[in-house]
Amino acid sequence: MQIAVLLYDRFTALDAIGPYETLGRLPGAEVVFVAERPGPVRNDAGSLALVADKGLHEVTRPDIVIVPGGPAPQAEMENPAVLDWLRAVDATSTWTTSVCTGSLLLAAAGLLDGRRASSHWMSLDRLPAFGARPTAERVVFDGKYVTAAGVSSGIDMGLALLGRIAGDEVAQTVQLMTEYDPQPPYDAGSPDKAPADLVARLRAVSPL
Amino acid sequence: MQIAVLLYDRFTALDAIGPYETLGRLPGAEVVFVAERPGPVRNDAGSLALVADKGLHEVTRPDIVIVPGGPAPQAEMENPAVLDWLRAVDATSTWTTSVCTGSLLLAAAGLLDGRRASSHWMSLDRLPAFGARPTAERVVFDGKYVTAAGVSSGIDMGLALLGRIAGDEVAQTVQLMTEYDPQPPYDAGSPDKAPADLVARLRAVSPL
Repeated sequence: MQIAVLLYDRFTALDAIGPYETLGRLPGAEVVFVAERPGPVRNDAGSLALVADKGLHEVTRPDIVIVPGGPAPQAEMENPAVLDWLRAVDATSTWTTSVCTGSLLLAAAGLLDGRRASSHWMSLDRLPAFGARPTAERVVFDGKYVTAAGVSSGIDMGLALLGRIAGDEVAQTVQLMTEYDPQPPYDAGSPDKAPADLVARLRAVSPL
Repeated sequence: MQIAVLLYDRFTALDAIGPYETLGRLPGAEVVFVAERPGPVRNDAGSLALVADKGLHEVTRPDIVIVPGGPAPQAEMENPAVLDWLRAVDATSTWTTSVCTGSLLLAAAGLLDGRRASSHWMSLDRLPAFGARPTAERVVFDGKYVTAAGVSSGIDMGLALLGRIAGDEVAQTVQLMTEYDPQPPYDAGSPDKAPADLVARLRAVSPL
């Protein structure tokens, strides 16, 4: 079982690490970080680089594909190397997944046509242009496609998919190992819950 | 304002990325990943490397220090280069923080003597050997020391500390941007909540 995590310039770190640290603990799985070119790949803030150990051409048949998002991933949505790779690996994957605006990459590759899909709350309205049906839920399963909402939702997606693949007990074990018993100090994690003026202000400046 | 995130061989990725993706969004802050030697640093699973852009000697006066944990970080707890650096930067830091077994490194450096501190639930009982007072809470403030419980708790710590430093509105904005509205598919994230047999089994095989 191979899990491939796609990296690209200006990805969001937690988008990748959330599912990595949960689903990536699937017993017996090999995880590989992959990018157009192997080597360090800088995140959106520019202050962190993760290493892609493999280039796209070296990872041709992963069982699970994880696509993180990033602010306005327009360049990747128009990058034939990335889109071709997504289509190619999706042809044989068991699960094709995304976090945050990663679903825009899957959609741009034509993989979410007619499917329900999640994304960062500020990017949901970009999905219909690619035939996807925006679904404001934290984790959306549609066939083998699993798409998560913004950034931190990849943790919930990782655990949910881990449970589907390996059973509840394995997923619970990983939850306990990672002590995922969230206690956010505020209740502002979704546009429904956050103060309205704050939501409006973010929408006004959104790069997504 | 400089935030330094310490990396070392076999650190746990989410321990570092949780506070990075929350507290690291502090307006005006510069974040630097630092290790004994600059360059790629492999995590506990071995399948991921983060790049330390700076060596310890290049980061001498960070305002905030973040120390992630890892399974059984014994080597670092006995590494004079790391312990000396922790003591040196702590002398001038505004906040010294840890996630998971990162508190064992702070404790081994002598920084938590007499202080309340959290850690991964399986490692709390190692704190008293260093004079710290184990506190089974998700985020523990004691003076300028902020220690979080296992792995994912660094997200809650990052938001809590961000609120203290920059105010509730900034922290809520970051919570909304990262869509941190957790919906774990299971309720097994702490030893109080997980099935007892699962807790017992983990304790039996624990590397911590």
